[in-house]
Amino acid sequence: MIVEILNVGTELLMGNIVNTNSAYLAQQCTKEGHSVYYMTTVGDNEKRLCEAIKTGVSRSQILIISGGLGPTMDDITKECVAKVCGLELVEDVNVKEEIRQYFEMRGKFNIPNNNWKQALVPTGAIILPNRNGTAPALFLTYKNCHIFLLPGPPNELKPLFEQEVVPYLRQWQEGIFVTSMIKLSGVGESFVEHQMSDLIKNQTNPTIAPYAKEGEVHLRVTARGKEVESANKLLAPVVNKIVFQFEADVYTTKEEVTLEESVISLLKEHHLKISTVESCTGGLIAGRLINVSGASDVLDQGFVTYANEAKEQLVGVQKDTIIKCGAVSEETAKEMAYGVATRYKSDVGLSVTGIAGPTGGTKEKPVGLVYIGCYLKGKTFVKECRFSGNRSKIRENSVAYALDFVRRMIIEQYR
Amino acid sequence: MIVEILNVGTELLMGNIVNTNSAYLAQQCTKEGHSVYYMTTVGDNEKRLCEAIKTGVSRSQILIISGGLGPTMDDITKECVAKVCGLELVEDVNVKEEIRQYFEMRGKFNIPNNNWKQALVPTGAIILPNRNGTAPALFLTYKNCHIFLLPGPPNELKPLFEQEVVPYLRQWQEGIFVTSMIKLSGVGESFVEHQMSDLIKNQTNPTIAPYAKEGEVHLRVTARGKEVESANKLLAPVVNKIVFQFEADVYTTKEEVTLEESVISLLKEHHLKISTVESCTGGLIAGRLINVSGASDVLDQGFVTYANEAKEQLVGVQKDTIIKCGAVSEETAKEMAYGVATRYKSDVGLSVTGIAGPTGGTKEKPVGLVYIGCYLKGKTFVKECRFSGNRSKIRENSVAYALDFVRRMIIEQYR
Repeated sequence: MIVEILNVGTELLMGNIVNTNSAYLAQQCTKEGHSVYYMTTVGDNEKRLCEAIKTGVSRSQILIISGGLGPTMDDITKECVAKVCGLELVEDVNVKEEIRQYFEMRGKFNIPNNNWKQALVPTGAIILPNRNGTAPALFLTYKNCHIFLLPGPPNELKPLFEQEVVPYLRQWQEGIFVTSMIKLSGVGESFVEHQMSDLIKNQTNPTIAPYAKEGEVHLRVTARGKEVESANKLLAPVVNKIVFQFEADVYTTKEEVTLEESVISLLKEHHLKISTVESCTGGLIAGRLINVSGASDVLDQGFVTYANEAKEQLVGVQKDTIIKCGAVSEETAKEMAYGVATRYKSDVGLSVTGIAGPTGGTKEKPVGLVYIGCYLKGKTFVKECRFSGNRSKIRENSVAYALDFVRRMIIEQYR
Repeated sequence: MIVEILNVGTELLMGNIVNTNSAYLAQQCTKEGHSVYYMTTVGDNEKRLCEAIKTGVSRSQILIISGGLGPTMDDITKECVAKVCGLELVEDVNVKEEIRQYFEMRGKFNIPNNNWKQALVPTGAIILPNRNGTAPALFLTYKNCHIFLLPGPPNELKPLFEQEVVPYLRQWQEGIFVTSMIKLSGVGESFVEHQMSDLIKNQTNPTIAPYAKEGEVHLRVTARGKEVESANKLLAPVVNKIVFQFEADVYTTKEEVTLEESVISLLKEHHLKISTVESCTGGLIAGRLINVSGASDVLDQGFVTYANEAKEQLVGVQKDTIIKCGAVSEETAKEMAYGVATRYKSDVGLSVTGIAGPTGGTKEKPVGLVYIGCYLKGKTFVKECRFSGNRSKIRENSVAYALDFVRRMIIEQYR
């Protein structure tokens, strides 16, 4: 079916935030076998929003509207949809009760009056429950167009889309799509594309689409068939071919598995405990590992040793090593990894020290130079990386490459 | 003037890339005093692209089109604009020569034939030279609408926009805009809006636009005047009024200052060193502080104490406290903050312990319950929070509220 994505928000038109919802929604709709033809953004303006809804209904079969469902006066998406479709807005007692509970659970009994506006629902619309906020999502059909209203914040929009919208999209699929997400870490996008440019170009079913993120490359392989079996028959050989080609670079072929999850799984599988010690990444590696529910089985503690003294006192880096080789050096990274593991009785020690910039770089040790250390089975390994970009990009790359490094080391040493 | 941004590219409709051009263009146009009313994205499809150009011309005074100027068969933006405006495409000898030079400077003398397509120009269009690629940008006026055609790659689009498009936008300016960004932390969006709904409603110059992010609310105040001075005269009293109203909730009125920067500045101002100890946030607080270049002046070390034993051994929480009150409790948060500061000779200790979920919640201590501890000047303060949402949202809110808490405590105690 033809899909149109309509984003609502004056903040988008002023360029205050980058619209990541539309790319997310487009990717998901495409994955489910529908074709996005238009994306439109308008502000919180009644006349122009109503016009955009009318246009969407007239030319598309599925209209996904995001934003403008909040409690403030600016938020008029529901009102405009009701107006265009000629529906009344009626207070829904269940939604009202849910809003009350949402606030009371948070110890707030004095609910701001404007929040009750969120309990208004166009007559006949189906309520899609929002577990991460007070604005429920809505679904209705008008003039052969299926209209979804979703809240703008990505952490509310994404789970709602996956849990409530995708089942409808699947019902309306023409044919079946099966996909596999091959995720690689520790390699660059251009390397991956170069290695498989012929394959990408010549493949039509399945198709292969590469996506790059910090320190990772994801390859989405999508096959289309009459039913699951025939689609899978087309998918499997291509996935196998790619996995065979990239070997250890691949950390998963499952969409839902993240790099940190693959590290936690490996640690659990081999009954290993890990401790981290970070300088330039300042806690972000531990932060990502702990984002995995159940990380407590493998991680007891982590350290941020930003000052040289902290490196010496907390994980036992030798003063001499720092004086001779510098805080950003292979030797310091090694001693950090060794120290954190042995001192705190962990099987694995993971360390990062580097120059994230913008200041602190020299000719010999430029901004972007990062050492990753990994202690494992009595041995200490180290990897030198040279990243480009700003402070934040260098740090994110360091985190991804550190997670990738410990992943590869565990696989190698326990094979 | 009314601006419309039209992005062309099937890769955008498939969600393969996030559209950062539209936010960039919107921000720049707004800064130059023009109002973006619509953003549209269509694919490389002649019918739909021509339709979008016609619509843009009919409702906007400035139409900025990006993408689809490349050398491949897919690239049809120029052809569609020429068709809609009834113009012929003619080869421009100068552009052709520039394309040849561009390739030769890069050591390529065998220029692919399809590149000559880029030398075709609609009759009467003004060529805007592109120093970073082979596709020249174009400017023409049709039916009272100024149309700009820009290449899609951001590294070509941005310099072209700044050097070639901005001078036109300035010519067409109707007055000057000045803005102030008032940033509040530790308060919710609906609270802020509730407090100032009258002000938002009745203000037309300056306008006030609220934006929410995890644990923060930003208010953009924009005034319009004939010149900077008169605009500032309108802006200042409204900004002062809001700052006065929200007092300690406001951490900055500068667009570029982040919450972590305001914390680092306060610590520097009072010559204080901080140490962090985190449980459920797992290093993300230290991670955000260290994202500020120069954080090394105030932060030597941080701890991730995920296991109970780590809380005891690293920062001296009493075993008894954990047994009696639990790891997630006011008492544990206090002992963590006190312990990390006194043991590691810091002036300030900041701790977080909470239940980020999805598992681990009970009736008495539900998912989302988080305690933030702050040790300062011999006293320990603690704040209880109840957050909603998934694991990642709870953790992000915890980080923001912890940064906000230490900010408020320093201001209060050193006032």
